[in-house]
Amino acid sequence: MKLSQIGELSLLSVLRKRFTKRSRGLLLGIGDDAAVIRPNSDLLLSTDMMVEGVHFDLSWITPFQLGFKLISVNISDIYAMGGTPLYVLLNFSARRDHTTRFFDGFFDGISAALKQYHIALIGGDMSSSDKIMLAVTAVGSAAKVLKRSGARIGDGIYVTGPLGDSACGLELLRAIKRPVDFDGAVPGGLPLSGDIVSALARRHVMPIARNPSRFSEKATAMIDVSDGLLIDLSRLCSESGVGALVRSADIPVSDELKAAAGYIGRPALDFALSGGEDYELLFTAPLNEGIRACCIGEITASGVAVVDKRGRKIRMPARGYQHFSP
Amino acid sequence: MKLSQIGELSLLSVLRKRFTKRSRGLLLGIGDDAAVIRPNSDLLLSTDMMVEGVHFDLSWITPFQLGFKLISVNISDIYAMGGTPLYVLLNFSARRDHTTRFFDGFFDGISAALKQYHIALIGGDMSSSDKIMLAVTAVGSAAKVLKRSGARIGDGIYVTGPLGDSACGLELLRAIKRPVDFDGAVPGGLPLSGDIVSALARRHVMPIARNPSRFSEKATAMIDVSDGLLIDLSRLCSESGVGALVRSADIPVSDELKAAAGYIGRPALDFALSGGEDYELLFTAPLNEGIRACCIGEITASGVAVVDKRGRKIRMPARGYQHFSP
Repeated sequence: MKLSQIGELSLLSVLRKRFTKRSRGLLLGIGDDAAVIRPNSDLLLSTDMMVEGVHFDLSWITPFQLGFKLISVNISDIYAMGGTPLYVLLNFSARRDHTTRFFDGFFDGISAALKQYHIALIGGDMSSSDKIMLAVTAVGSAAKVLKRSGARIGDGIYVTGPLGDSACGLELLRAIKRPVDFDGAVPGGLPLSGDIVSALARRHVMPIARNPSRFSEKATAMIDVSDGLLIDLSRLCSESGVGALVRSADIPVSDELKAAAGYIGRPALDFALSGGEDYELLFTAPLNEGIRACCIGEITASGVAVVDKRGRKIRMPARGYQHFSP
Repeated sequence: MKLSQIGELSLLSVLRKRFTKRSRGLLLGIGDDAAVIRPNSDLLLSTDMMVEGVHFDLSWITPFQLGFKLISVNISDIYAMGGTPLYVLLNFSARRDHTTRFFDGFFDGISAALKQYHIALIGGDMSSSDKIMLAVTAVGSAAKVLKRSGARIGDGIYVTGPLGDSACGLELLRAIKRPVDFDGAVPGGLPLSGDIVSALARRHVMPIARNPSRFSEKATAMIDVSDGLLIDLSRLCSESGVGALVRSADIPVSDELKAAAGYIGRPALDFALSGGEDYELLFTAPLNEGIRACCIGEITASGVAVVDKRGRKIRMPARGYQHFSP
């Protein structure tokens, strides 16, 4: 059945039944003019949007994956401040001819992500539109707030996991032009094993936001890698008034990325330095504190430089995705 | 200059400078992964979106008016819960060829609304897209929360001001096909005085959200009239498990609406009952309590009925705007 046959009020009533859950500090959820919460700490508020044809394309992402990613991307911002996610509010617009099957998949993906992060959907709005437009606002509680501005000269620079997978996964998805169903067979057509395609594609369409709780006490500054390591590290350095030296050999790169990058004919390091949407956390902390994350360099007085194994500077512009760029 | 020549980072930096202000309970505003606030009461959270071609059309709304309306619409939801607005977060997407002039106007409108409601913009996200898509999340503090569900049989039904102006203003704007500049001459082409066109158009493109503080202590249930009196009253009744009797003669209708409705050839009452986007507050409260608002009827046991001066039922379907409707 199509949305135009169901109407907004019926869809709202379905969503209200589906997403009305008891949750920490939630006094009133979906169904009134606003949700009501009772905070017991400082709160973090963040918002992110995803637009069809800009951030995603239904030719390579399923509705389920889209719903899951939308929540992950927003929760990543709460984690990037050292917070604990609590609630999300959702705006979505879609075409009148989108089917209930589309929305079932999308909201299944949202549900799976809510479970993943132990959070509740507490409000939202919907509209018709030519293209799908999604905007989520995430609310989290803050104990120790980790800003971008706390890095100090001599701190180590850490990331929580391999970089570049997501950008490479996107290139593969664009090449195969269909979504990857992680429960079934991987589409062929590429001279790469299905496992490699699947692993990289998953990093792009089903990213898992990283919980910083195991190291946040020791971290001095943090940001999530959404636009690319170099651009996000430059932002952190700029806010902290410092520089950075990154050792390219220490940047974690997955075996899958190495294999696929070889096939694509672009260095894996290129993806790792400039590829966005990995949603790994990038943070600084004093060295030799037993931090369980990959140390990729150190904070310096100024400039952001990348050096190879022999200490030679690698010329790398701070590329990364910018909306409205020429 | 066009957005594509400026880029996202430059625009962000301009917005950050422009909207970084000290504000009650705000620990960290625009510029990090999330804003940080220190609540001193229960909080209200609400979100609303506006999509070009669905909610507005640049042929009849200026960028300034669009920015102002976007904030008003969202603040109206906070007021409708009996709250005090505090902060907003903004998502916007626009075409790469939108000019800085467009954005100057839009953000001037946002600024004017922030001043109007004494609130701060504390975060947001931006994207490119084919059509303008806007989503705002509003945060308010709640003392006595006024839900839709508190109406009791025998309560009076009140509205804060005239209804139907906005929907009629929209019809006029669509007819003249250009924005109304409230400081200058009103475009001609209609057999109506410029003052009438201007007054009704203003209700549509520059709505002012209504502050309920003068009566919220006495109110039992509340909603804002965004989709039309009948549909919004039906929602309130449905949530409260009650009905309503509305006296059509008591519904406040402006002289401007009467004049313009005559010209359009549709009863003014039609606009007042079914026209949306007035953003007046609709609430219930015990009768004879000296409430400073228009009493338009009473809460009954069941059914929503409208009666004329002689007590005869007027047949009125609960019309109003529904997205995705056939």
